Amino acid sequence: MKTSVTVLGLGLMGAALAEAFLKDGRTVTVWNRSPAKAGPLVAKGAMKAGTAAEAISASPLVIVCLSVYANAEEILTGDALAGRTIVQLTNGTPRQARDLAGRVTGNGGRYVDGGIMAVPPMIGRPGALVLYSGDDEAFGEHRETLAVLGRPQFLGADPGLAPLFDLALLDAMYGMIAGFQHAVALVRSEKIPATTFEPMATAWLTAMMASFPEQARAVDEGDFGTAVSSVATSQVAFPGLIETSRDQGVDPGHLPALRELFDRAVAEGHGDDGLARLITLLAR
Amino acid sequence: MKTSVTVLGLGLMGAALAEAFLKDGRTVTVWNRSPAKAGPLVAKGAMKAGTAAEAISASPLVIVCLSVYANAEEILTGDALAGRTIVQLTNGTPRQARDLAGRVTGNGGRYVDGGIMAVPPMIGRPGALVLYSGDDEAFGEHRETLAVLGRPQFLGADPGLAPLFDLALLDAMYGMIAGFQHAVALVRSEKIPATTFEPMATAWLTAMMASFPEQARAVDEGDFGTAVSSVATSQVAFPGLIETSRDQGVDPGHLPALRELFDRAVAEGHGDDGLARLITLLAR
Ligand SMILES: NC(=O)c1ccc[n+]([C@@H]2O[C@H](COP(=O)([O-])OP(=O)(O)OC[C@H]3O[C@@H](n4cnc5c(N)ncnc54)[C@H](OP(=O)(O)O)[C@@H]3O)[C@@H](O)[C@H]2O)c1
Ligand SMILES: NC(=O)c1ccc[n+]([C@@H]2O[C@H](COP(=O)([O-])OP(=O)(O)OC[C@H]3O[C@@H](n4cnc5c(N)ncnc54)[C@H](OP(=O)(O)O)[C@@H]3O)[C@@H](O)[C@H]2O)c1
Repeated sequence: MKTSVTVLGLGLMGAALAEAFLKDGRTVTVWNRSPAKAGPLVAKGAMKAGTAAEAISASPLVIVCLSVYANAEEILTGDALAGRTIVQLTNGTPRQARDLAGRVTGNGGRYVDGGIMAVPPMIGRPGALVLYSGDDEAFGEHRETLAVLGRPQFLGADPGLAPLFDLALLDAMYGMIAGFQHAVALVRSEKIPATTFEPMATAWLTAMMASFPEQARAVDEGDFGTAVSSVATSQVAFPGLIETSRDQGVDPGHLPALRELFDRAVAEGHGDDGLARLITLLAR
Repeated sequence: MKTSVTVLGLGLMGAALAEAFLKDGRTVTVWNRSPAKAGPLVAKGAMKAGTAAEAISASPLVIVCLSVYANAEEILTGDALAGRTIVQLTNGTPRQARDLAGRVTGNGGRYVDGGIMAVPPMIGRPGALVLYSGDDEAFGEHRETLAVLGRPQFLGADPGLAPLFDLALLDAMYGMIAGFQHAVALVRSEKIPATTFEPMATAWLTAMMASFPEQARAVDEGDFGTAVSSVATSQVAFPGLIETSRDQGVDPGHLPALRELFDRAVAEGHGDDGLARLITLLAR
């Protein structure tokens, strides 16, 4: 028989999670602070619990998806946790995950933290990636059930790892988006449509991503020699970039922060190193 | 007969350009401020000119590749320019390109500006992209010769377009690299090797790039509705990102600048819009 599941929190994401379990033919118990949000799921076969504790008691596997950690901390207390596996998908920090894991295990529960690398419409589809870390035995037992939501990837026993990787991937994504958006603002300042520039930018960024494996190797091995592209070569580009941005009436945005890092790298004698050297300067 | 070519400036890039033309069997005249750099090229069959003016006179097509625009402005003067096509590959701003184009055409020359989207070892290979803009007749005549260096892409008659797109592509690339590097610094703060994180980051960024065509369409059409990912949803991620960064001993770097833009977008009432709305806030 398929494991039955409880979902706490029926916002945009929680509702998508509950729906994916229902579609997979599971017994699903739901709870939400504002009870009305359970309606559409009950119509599709979900059981509605009157309280969070009742919902936690209803299933061996409890999925939590609220706005912020503090919401989860309020709810994940008491005897109901004993013997349950809590899979906590609310976004937070590694520290918050480790704290909450301690409280849940202190109450006799097992704790897995997770990071959903997808938007609600992607849940239940193969493109959705969900990162997990924490109790590996509990994860192993429920891997098949969790796979209903998206491709599960287990990162290790430290519950802080999933939020760490989640934040790191978002971090990388926001940098990429910021770069693209700033570039689009520049070309649009000359009345060039973004749709003219976008295919070129996408092809270029895809090609430039080929430098990432080498950057990763360089920083892991502490070997920053380069025959291709040095910190100093890039450093000289920033004044022109920032000046052009201003000339074109575009806010320099994040560029001064990048310029400062390149300037610091050169000032500290790393001008001839490859770009991966900058990673070491970010760690304080 | 193949067009003969002059190359002014034999730094890392200029030498690679001259070498590609030599390999293609062309008559190549070279000049460099410090004459010694011509040596290896002369050994491969290049003709060495005594002065820049002499070099300009030697060929109908003159490629310029110096450190900065001011260097090119010093050299591209006088009667020697009459009847020549100047292809100016020194990196600069759109304004500098337009100014120099005016001076070259004022002296009877034709002007094409260009941006090399490649490092020297890529020159002469299919992966190298070179952007051009300016005199389209001159470009058309010399397209085949320029194709020796890399794939030529002509952007339009305004000589400022090539430097604009060049800067915009670099801008986009530096944002992407900054995001990746900051993310790597975060995971390394937990002693996770960059090489463990990199494949996941590359796959994730590649998937997230799929949002670019929609962002481009949205900003061109001024239609910012979204059912997937709103400015407000992303805004709430930044305090946690910055806090975790500090917790982990990683400099927040460019994140405060991104946070400020998201905060401004929400404050101005764009919280429910898609991320493309941020592009309009960058333009002042
Ligand atoms: N949406 C996405 O694209 C996405 C993607 C990846 C990860 N996530 C993460 O998933 C989590 C949920 O996101 P969402 O999009 O579902 O958010 P949402 O639509 O705003 O839903 C928030 C949920 O939290 C509940 N909640 C808020 N404060 C509460 C409290 N004090 N006590 C009990 N419940 C409370 C809400 O209950 P009420 O209905 O009673 O307000 C609602 O169920 C967040 O951590 C988010 O970062 C979202
Ligand atoms: N290298 C790359 O990866 C790359 C990629 C794309 C675009 N670019 C662009 O290509 C251009 C050249 O780059 P590079 O890598 O070849 O630089 P480089 O190796 O530093 O060479 C600079 C060249 O400029 C000359 N120069 C400097 N000041 C001069 C002056 N006052 N008068 C006359 N000549 C002067 C130098 O002559 P001396 O030998 O006498 O010093 C040398 O030939 C730059 O605009 C760069 O942004 C480079």
